[in-house]
Amino acid sequence: MNAVVGQSGGPTAVINQSLAGVVETLQQRSDFTGKILGARHAVAGVVRGDFADLTGIDAEKLDLIAGTPSSALGSSRDKPDAAYCERIFESFTKHDVGYFFYAGGNDSSDTCRIVAEMAGAKGYDLKAFHVPKTIDNDLKVNDHTPGFGSAAKFVAQAFMGDDLDNRALPGIKINVVMGRHAGFLTAASLAGVVAEDSGPHLVCVPEVTFDEEKFIDDVERVYKKLGRCLVAVSEGIHDADGNAIITKLQEDVEKDAHGNVQLSGTGALGDLLADLVKKKLGDRLGQKLRVRADTFGYLQRSFVGCVSEVDAAEARQAGREAVKAAFESGRGSGSIAIVRTSSSPYAVDYKTIDIAEVAALTRHMPEAFLGGERGVTEAFVDYVKPIIGELPAVGLL
Amino acid sequence: MNAVVGQSGGPTAVINQSLAGVVETLQQRSDFTGKILGARHAVAGVVRGDFADLTGIDAEKLDLIAGTPSSALGSSRDKPDAAYCERIFESFTKHDVGYFFYAGGNDSSDTCRIVAEMAGAKGYDLKAFHVPKTIDNDLKVNDHTPGFGSAAKFVAQAFMGDDLDNRALPGIKINVVMGRHAGFLTAASLAGVVAEDSGPHLVCVPEVTFDEEKFIDDVERVYKKLGRCLVAVSEGIHDADGNAIITKLQEDVEKDAHGNVQLSGTGALGDLLADLVKKKLGDRLGQKLRVRADTFGYLQRSFVGCVSEVDAAEARQAGREAVKAAFESGRGSGSIAIVRTSSSPYAVDYKTIDIAEVAALTRHMPEAFLGGERGVTEAFVDYVKPIIGELPAVGLL
Repeated sequence: MNAVVGQSGGPTAVINQSLAGVVETLQQRSDFTGKILGARHAVAGVVRGDFADLTGIDAEKLDLIAGTPSSALGSSRDKPDAAYCERIFESFTKHDVGYFFYAGGNDSSDTCRIVAEMAGAKGYDLKAFHVPKTIDNDLKVNDHTPGFGSAAKFVAQAFMGDDLDNRALPGIKINVVMGRHAGFLTAASLAGVVAEDSGPHLVCVPEVTFDEEKFIDDVERVYKKLGRCLVAVSEGIHDADGNAIITKLQEDVEKDAHGNVQLSGTGALGDLLADLVKKKLGDRLGQKLRVRADTFGYLQRSFVGCVSEVDAAEARQAGREAVKAAFESGRGSGSIAIVRTSSSPYAVDYKTIDIAEVAALTRHMPEAFLGGERGVTEAFVDYVKPIIGELPAVGLL
Repeated sequence: MNAVVGQSGGPTAVINQSLAGVVETLQQRSDFTGKILGARHAVAGVVRGDFADLTGIDAEKLDLIAGTPSSALGSSRDKPDAAYCERIFESFTKHDVGYFFYAGGNDSSDTCRIVAEMAGAKGYDLKAFHVPKTIDNDLKVNDHTPGFGSAAKFVAQAFMGDDLDNRALPGIKINVVMGRHAGFLTAASLAGVVAEDSGPHLVCVPEVTFDEEKFIDDVERVYKKLGRCLVAVSEGIHDADGNAIITKLQEDVEKDAHGNVQLSGTGALGDLLADLVKKKLGDRLGQKLRVRADTFGYLQRSFVGCVSEVDAAEARQAGREAVKAAFESGRGSGSIAIVRTSSSPYAVDYKTIDIAEVAALTRHMPEAFLGGERGVTEAFVDYVKPIIGELPAVGLL
C-alpha cells in the first residue's frame, strides 16, 4: 500500500518540516515498502491524481525543503463534501493508498476526520492521521501547534522593531495581527518587551469584546503617560454581538468556502481603527494626532529567515509521530497533539488523540492569559517565550 | 569644543551603527577632548538642550546599541527654518559645540546644510558633517546608502516567502513597498527570485508612470501564464500628471512638515489596487479572482533580526569617516558618500563631498535598471545583491 501526504490550509514557516518528518520516517520503516505520494494542493491534488513522488527523495533535498517556508506541495482551501470524498476514495483505490497523512489546522483536521469516517463506513483499509499545524495556535488539546512559534517570533521581532521606531518618532501606532478567533499570535507581540515602557502597550484579542469607547480610553491613558502608544490588534476582533469590526467598514465582504469573512490581505481594519483614534481621541484632546496603522498580513506565516528552532524541531517530530502512530498505535485514525510536560526546563511530549477532539473546534486563550493593564498577562509571556526561543538583544539609550 | 551627534528622519536598521561609528572614533581621537553629546530627537533635542552624554559610553554598550534597529537617540521630522536655526546656534554656543554630526536622508542633509551655512555666515567655528542614511537609497553621488541594504534584505526575504505562499494558494497578490520617489527598495523584491516562475512577476516603481490599463494588461498576461501573479508596488507610484495614485482614494490626505503626502502607515493603496484588479480583470476574465494586498509598512525599516552585514559595516564606517573628515579634510562641512570601486569582488570607498551635492535632491533609478518583462532589469539585481548579502536558501518541489 502507498502513502499520501498532504498540506492543507494556510501555509506556515515550518509545515515543510512536518512533511519531511512524515517522508523520512516512512523511508526508514522496514514495514513500509510502498510509494510516498505528495498530493499537490492537498485534497485537490488527491482527486486529480496529481502527486509528487517523494519515495526516493534524498535527505539533503528533503532538508532544504524542510527549511523552506510555505507548503512545498501546495495547499487548498477546499472543504470536501460527500461527493468530493467519493472522488478522494476513487483516487485512493486507484493509487493503492493505505496511509494518509494530512497536515493542517482545525478545518483541515475535519477534512481528515470525514475521509477517515468514510473509509471506515466503506470498509476501506485506510490509516488517516492528522498532523497539527496552525499559526493561530487554536487547536484543542495541544499546548501549542507547529507553525505558531515561528509566526510568534516574527510578530515579536516586528513589535520589538516597531516599538523602537515608535520611540524614535512618537505617535499612536496600531498593528493588525492574524487571528480570527484566537488571540495567541497577537499576544505574542509582548514576547519582545524589554522595558517597562516598551510596547505593545495594549493588546486587543478576539477573546475580549472590542468596545470602541474603552479602546479610546485605553489609548488616551497610555498616550498621556508616554506620549506614544503602540497597539496590537487581532484581525478578528468583534463587537458584543459577535460582528467582526472589519465588517463595519467593508460593504462587500468576501467569504471563503468555509464561510469565513476575508480578514487578511487587506489593510481595512487598521485604517478603520487609525481613523477612529484620529477623530475621537483627536477631538477629545483637541489636537491633530500622528496615528499610523500597519497590517502584518501574509508575512507572518511565510517570511523567509525568521523561524523558531523549537517550532521547527517540533513540527518535524509531529510528522514523525504521525507515521509512528499509523503503524504502531493500532488506530485507524488519529491526530498528533503536543503536550507540555515541563515548564522549567521546557519539555514537550507527543500523544495520539482522536481527530474529533480537534476537528472543527477552536481553542481560545484561557482566562489566565487575559487581563491586566495591557490586556494580556505575564502568564502568557511565560508560556510563549520557550516556543519562540531567543530573540535578538536590543539596547536603549 | 564638544561634539553633537544626531539622527534624523525615518529610522533604519543600521542608523545606530553610524552613531556608534561617530562616537567610537571621537573617543579614539587624541585631538578631541570634549564631550560627545547625543541630541535626543535630532534638532528638536538640540534646541531644547536635551542631550545624552555619550562621552564615556563603553564599547560593549555601544555595540549593543549599534546592533539595535531604529534611532536610539530618537528622531524628528522638524525642518529648521531661520528662526529654528537661531535656536540651534544658541544651543551650540551654550554647550560649546564645535562639531555636529547628523545622520539622515536628503531632507536631513538639507537641515545640516542650512546649519552649516548659518555657522559660516555668523563666523561660528563649526564642523558640520552629514552621514548618509535612507532606506530609499535616493541620495545623489552615493552608489547606495546605509539603511538601504537591510531594508532591501527584508523586502527580498518577504517576497521570497510570499512567493512561496502564493505558489501554495495561488492568486493575485499585491505588496506595497516604501518608496516615495525612488523605486530601489521595491525593486529589491527581485533579489530573492529562485526560479523562472518566481515572483514578483511585476514591479511598479515611481520612476515609471503608472497606467491602470497597462497594469491590468500586465497582471492578466502573468495570470494567464502562471495562474497566479505577485506584484511589487512602490507606495509613491503616480499617474502621468504626477498625482500619487494613493490620493485617488483618500479624500483627506495628510501631509508632513516637508509637505509630503502620507504614504506609509496605511493600507489604502494596496486595497485600492486589489479592488481595481478584482473589478477590471475579474470583469474581463468573467471570474471571481482571489486578490489580496499587503503593505509592508514600518517593518521594512525597523524589523529586529534582519540586517545586511554589509550594510551594517558600511553604516558604521560612514560614521567613522564623517569624524575623520571633520578633523582631517580641512572642510567646514561635508557629506560622506559611498562609491563602489569594484563590482566583482564587491568593494566600496568613502569620499567626502559638498553637502549641496546631496541636500534636498533625489536620485532615481537609472534607465539601465528599468524595463524588461518584470519592469526592472537583471542589471539592478546584479547591483543590489552584494548590498543585501546572502539570502536564505529555499527549495521547491
